[in-house]
Parts: sequence; structure tokens; C-alpha cells
Amino acid sequence: MRQFQDRIRAEGRVLPGNIIKVDGFLNHRVDTALMRDMAKEFKSRFDLSGLTAVLTVEASGIALATICAEEFGVPMIFAKKAKSDNIEGGLYHSEIYSYTYKKKFTLILASQWLKAHDKVLIIDDFLANGEALRGLIEIVHEANADLIGIGVAIEKGFQPGGKNIREAGIHLESLAIIESADETGIRFREE
Amino acid sequence: MRQFQDRIRAEGRVLPGNIIKVDGFLNHRVDTALMRDMAKEFKSRFDLSGLTAVLTVEASGIALATICAEEFGVPMIFAKKAKSDNIEGGLYHSEIYSYTYKKKFTLILASQWLKAHDKVLIIDDFLANGEALRGLIEIVHEANADLIGIGVAIEKGFQPGGKNIREAGIHLESLAIIESADETGIRFREE
Repeated sequence: MRQFQDRIRAEGRVLPGNIIKVDGFLNHRVDTALMRDMAKEFKSRFDLSGLTAVLTVEASGIALATICAEEFGVPMIFAKKAKSDNIEGGLYHSEIYSYTYKKKFTLILASQWLKAHDKVLIIDDFLANGEALRGLIEIVHEANADLIGIGVAIEKGFQPGGKNIREAGIHLESLAIIESADETGIRFREE
Repeated sequence: MRQFQDRIRAEGRVLPGNIIKVDGFLNHRVDTALMRDMAKEFKSRFDLSGLTAVLTVEASGIALATICAEEFGVPMIFAKKAKSDNIEGGLYHSEIYSYTYKKKFTLILASQWLKAHDKVLIIDDFLANGEALRGLIEIVHEANADLIGIGVAIEKGFQPGGKNIREAGIHLESLAIIESADETGIRFREE
């Protein structure tokens, strides 16, 4: 998605450790008009017939998932990050490792909000190692729901998450795939 | 806002300790069409001329704030909750007490995203004791930005947050003010 890649190139900052900061329009100060364009782009890339929900994880995925859900005319469901291992009943849960925070989280979702008849598109802002998405996929499976695919704003193509998801046969669409990022600039995979 | 109050009455659950659960359309599984109507209602209740940003706090305020920001044509900025006291430079921060989690959090916002020329509307999903909103107001003051007002989805009228904010002379609009909630039902303050 050209417009989005240009924005990343113009405003993204590369920090040591291949960290790409796009706080000014995606993660902290959010450009909702850009997100509407991103939602339309996802709509053109997936067959959304029968879709019943958009699923994401708190916190930074919520803004994009909300605009996508409204664009597609379905509810937006978000999994929560629990710090404890005391998981109550009536919850789907999946343990993930956060490389950002260097610790384990448990993703939880009240089971009443996702059922076997649901057809789900997962949306998230970033894909690097793919731990958050692995957790969400696990929750969709726990619910016996259908996974239509996964839409991601920015994929770090030099980390293994995207490759793993595609090899699992899941339809993954990333609006920008970054091949490399360093002090000389950000380079994208050709679409 | 009649439609919203009816929804709370029909689907809200009252748990011990005056906890009101509206997970099915506001906090966990989000009805984005309802949020669009709520955003339009806020638009009719505030003078938004000169508005430059909608401000909220992660995580459950983000969905409503995103739709509001798009409706008003401005960016959505969200403060983050930090668990540590190690606050780096370049951040606005405010310490709040969460009655939900029974611990202190520090709200942080990178100072580059909110400036003295900004005119801000704060949006949040719930107002009870008003700690989160107090923290956001403090951050707006730290930035020397203008606060147009505060829009809240559900105010618990039997807790002191709303009264304190109104007494401070801030324009507060709550789409539903709950006067009491127990096993016999939920009663709203007359608009």
C-alpha cells in the first residue's frame, strides 16, 4: 500500500535493535483517516463474505481493528493481556511471549464473545515474531471459529512471524513489509 | 442518549460491588455502529471549533475515542499506562490510582504528540471515581493545551468522579448517568 509505505518512510524512526517507531500516526497519535484507507485496502484483499467479527489484542491494535470492523459492518472483539496465571472459567486463553516487554502474557477472551459459528478476520498493527498473532489464532481455534485470514499494518519481513503464518496456510496480508531498517533508511519488500 | 441507555438496561449486568459489565457492546466485544452514533451525539453536545485532537487512555477507551476522532476529523492520541516509576524524559506523566486493579499506575504521553497550541476533547468509556480522567486532565495542563471538555459513555452517578469534574468547571457530557445499579435493575439520571 503505497501511501502507507510513503508515510512510514517519511515519519518512521529506526531505533537500535531494529525497532521501528511509527507513534506519530499508528501507535500513540493515531491518524484515523489513514486507518480508514487501510480498512478499505484490507476489504479489497480478503473475501469477507460471511464475516462475523474482527479480532485483535489490546492495546495498540484496537484503533485499526475498530475502523476495520466498522468498515466491514461487524463487531470488533479484543483479547486482553492478563499478567497472572489465575485464569477464571469461561475464558479462552493462550500464553504468549512478548519480545517488547521480555515477559510472558496470557491472552484472554471471554468465551461468550466468540463461538463456533463465527467467521473471524484478525487485525493487528505489527507483526514481528508473531507471538501475539499465534495467541489469537489459538483462541480462534479454541472457539472452533473459522479464521478467514490476518491483516497486519506493518510486517517486519526480517523476523520470522510472517513466514511462519504463511507456511501454516493462513491468508496473511501486510500493508507494508519492511525488509530492512537501519540508519540508512527503511526498505520495503516489493508488492 | 436514549438508545444507549436502553442497550445498557437490556444487556448490562450488575455484579457485586456496583460493577456494571457492558462487555457485549462497549468493552470487550465492541459495537462500532453504536459508537458512531455516540460520536455524533458528542459532536452535538460540544462546540468543537478549533479542535485538534481527541485524547484517551489505553485500553478500553481507544475504540470509542478512535470513532470520535474520525467523526471530528482530528487525530486520536492515547496515554499509556506504565507500571514502573522509571519515567524517561520527553514524557508527560501523571500518577493515578486504579480502583479496578487496586494499584497505582502512571499515565504517560510522549510530549511531542501534545503541544500548547492543541485544543483537546477527552473521551473515555467509564467515569466512576475519575482517577483516569484526573490523570488525563493533568497531562493536558502539563502540555499547556486547551481542554474543550470531556465526553464519557457511562458515568456512575453514585461515585464522586463526575461531581468533582463539574465542580472544577469542566464541560462534562456523559451519554448515560447511572444513579443506582443492583439486582433489581439499573436506573438512570433523568437527562
